[in-house]
Amino acid sequence: MQNGVTVWFTGLSGAGKTTLSKLVEEKLRQSGARVELLDGDILRRNFTLDLGFSRADRMKNIALAAYIAKLLTQNGVIVLASFITPYQEMRNYCRGEIGPLIEVYVKCPLTECMRRDVKGLYAKALRGEIVGFTGVSDPFEEPVNPDIVVETDKQDADQCALRIVSFVQKYIQEREPQ
Amino acid sequence: MQNGVTVWFTGLSGAGKTTLSKLVEEKLRQSGARVELLDGDILRRNFTLDLGFSRADRMKNIALAAYIAKLLTQNGVIVLASFITPYQEMRNYCRGEIGPLIEVYVKCPLTECMRRDVKGLYAKALRGEIVGFTGVSDPFEEPVNPDIVVETDKQDADQCALRIVSFVQKYIQEREPQ
Repeated sequence: MQNGVTVWFTGLSGAGKTTLSKLVEEKLRQSGARVELLDGDILRRNFTLDLGFSRADRMKNIALAAYIAKLLTQNGVIVLASFITPYQEMRNYCRGEIGPLIEVYVKCPLTECMRRDVKGLYAKALRGEIVGFTGVSDPFEEPVNPDIVVETDKQDADQCALRIVSFVQKYIQEREPQ
Repeated sequence: MQNGVTVWFTGLSGAGKTTLSKLVEEKLRQSGARVELLDGDILRRNFTLDLGFSRADRMKNIALAAYIAKLLTQNGVIVLASFITPYQEMRNYCRGEIGPLIEVYVKCPLTECMRRDVKGLYAKALRGEIVGFTGVSDPFEEPVNPDIVVETDKQDADQCALRIVSFVQKYIQEREPQ
């Protein structure tokens, strides 16, 4: 059985987490690996509608994601999890809970994320229409010990994805029973 | 890779779903299969605390369970899912969503479940301390097309578990690529 691992993408809204995870998914699938995407937006939209953006509710959302990621990881799946994960406490929790985990910090200056504003969320947050929005009215704590940092304002998405893919493949090979 | 399937245990609270799923888990693990348990109580307690017992909230809880079961099933895991799943609509949803699914109706008369009342929930429900409790103040719709029916007031748990295990093993063998 393939070794499982969770690749956890953390970063601001608009930094490129979903874009990168989809590119990484494509490349890993081409190599024959079993891969699943977990996406913060999808999970929230479909299953945790009643959760808000308080610290406790954010933790619950991440705890659910970590639970699903763990179940898949221990069954040999490569999980690509895209969640803002704004607090270091959350990232520590995920690492402790899931076990084999590669933390990818998708780094992009707040000003650039605001300029992109693909979903129009920053504009809303700045107008005060969304409360507790990460980067605007809620903190994003810089990751303390990411395994990979990709800077999406400096490198193109394909380059970033390739770096992540080779890191993942190396990680999995090294954990294979000799 | 092992073929995945979800074994969905439906039945009243106290009918024996969790007991049976744990016995089935043990027996399947002994045969070397990859197995995961999903349990309604655990999921509710840890991840969907804000959900109540309205029809809509119950559906959300089941939809989350089905989502997790599907992810695992399509990656070759045998999922043992224990949820009251009181409405036929839910069971139809699970079958449609997950694909390979064995529906196990854990059948036990309400009077016997009330007599057992392992968690003391029926007593509370009868005193009106729990609203919308299945069997007391919310309906349990008899499953229309279960794959297996086990009657836990007539057969002992081990016999029931063995029947389920052999059904699961046969199901998986028949789906193996020839």
